[in-house]
Amino acid sequence: MKKVVVLLSGGLDSTTLAYLLKSEGYKLFTLSFNYGQRHKKELECAEEIAKILNSTHKTVDITSITSLISKGALTGSTPVPHSHYTAETQKITIVPNRNSILLSLAFGYAVKLGISNVAYAAHKNDFTIYPDCREDFASRFEDAIRWANDNFKLNLLRPFINKTKAEIVKLGLSLKVPYQKTWSCYEGDDLACGQCGTCQERLEAFRLNNAKDPIQYKVTI
Amino acid sequence: MKKVVVLLSGGLDSTTLAYLLKSEGYKLFTLSFNYGQRHKKELECAEEIAKILNSTHKTVDITSITSLISKGALTGSTPVPHSHYTAETQKITIVPNRNSILLSLAFGYAVKLGISNVAYAAHKNDFTIYPDCREDFASRFEDAIRWANDNFKLNLLRPFINKTKAEIVKLGLSLKVPYQKTWSCYEGDDLACGQCGTCQERLEAFRLNNAKDPIQYKVTI
Repeated sequence: MKKVVVLLSGGLDSTTLAYLLKSEGYKLFTLSFNYGQRHKKELECAEEIAKILNSTHKTVDITSITSLISKGALTGSTPVPHSHYTAETQKITIVPNRNSILLSLAFGYAVKLGISNVAYAAHKNDFTIYPDCREDFASRFEDAIRWANDNFKLNLLRPFINKTKAEIVKLGLSLKVPYQKTWSCYEGDDLACGQCGTCQERLEAFRLNNAKDPIQYKVTI
Repeated sequence: MKKVVVLLSGGLDSTTLAYLLKSEGYKLFTLSFNYGQRHKKELECAEEIAKILNSTHKTVDITSITSLISKGALTGSTPVPHSHYTAETQKITIVPNRNSILLSLAFGYAVKLGISNVAYAAHKNDFTIYPDCREDFASRFEDAIRWANDNFKLNLLRPFINKTKAEIVKLGLSLKVPYQKTWSCYEGDDLACGQCGTCQERLEAFRLNNAKDPIQYKVTI
């Protein structure tokens, strides 16, 4: 049976990715990281999604490395920008070298388990600001990882790299992804704020599909 | 002033690397990882070396990720092989994807500090068994990291990649590296065992330079 280690944050993109890979016949090994994010609810969502998908799930605590690398809004005391992302406001959510770190850990785990595939949900909306969500990075990183392990069967699956968030939601709706169980908001509150860049992107993705986001928001949408 | 983040384990190779870079005029930011190694003494050695070199030093606890990736002898309950390394015995000391993980963390730290260089002490003796100590990996990883951060000034310094351990010791002796303050043994005891692969490699490197290793061993050398 083909197997894959999936970076599962509990958000919309990675949940759709897990559903897609499950529908393609993969046995899933989902991996979440506790990096001290404000939005811990994501981690609980990831766990629940993993259960539904019958995935072997692991949450790894990497808070000890947060102080080493982070200065961004997702973990620090910098306020999360409230409005649709602009290049400038999205930039403060950058965690330097984030995907190299998380994917290196995921590949370490995959190699230990004898699994050849690691998947992440990099997509087109992240392209402009996050260079580690681009094909230019992904293909080079995959190549480096193969050489790092002397294993040329290793693959970095990235099926959304040329898809927009709206296209991901379109696919997810067709796969019957339970979006009410996902979490995107960068704030740490009980209900999604509806105002941070991630909430706005998410709402827009549903709107473009003439669909309603099933989660509850603090504000009237 | 040029700056560099150096992976400093407290062993012979990385200590010589730190001395070399210092002699070349770099301001050092040394980085050690506590990954649950048997040989914690290494970490104390790293701290002491960093002090001597007036380096900004950080030890990062990554034990939380050890269970995710490790099955090797350096952290687990597998005995450390006692004898000069052969391909087979050295293999059990492999931690999958180790250098991708550590270098990704180091580059995250460097990018946060606005530093362009990261250095690691990969060398020729490690070439056969550890693929992440080879130029094939190092050049590809450096390329991927540049794309990951959209920063083409980032460099992975690896001056020992074509040097043997004996050549490193030769250089270190000329740089007056205080080898009595370094630690190589994979066992966790007070004195170096003199028998594990790393002890034997170290002893051989001094012998090839007609020099005496200044550290004390449990056994008569």
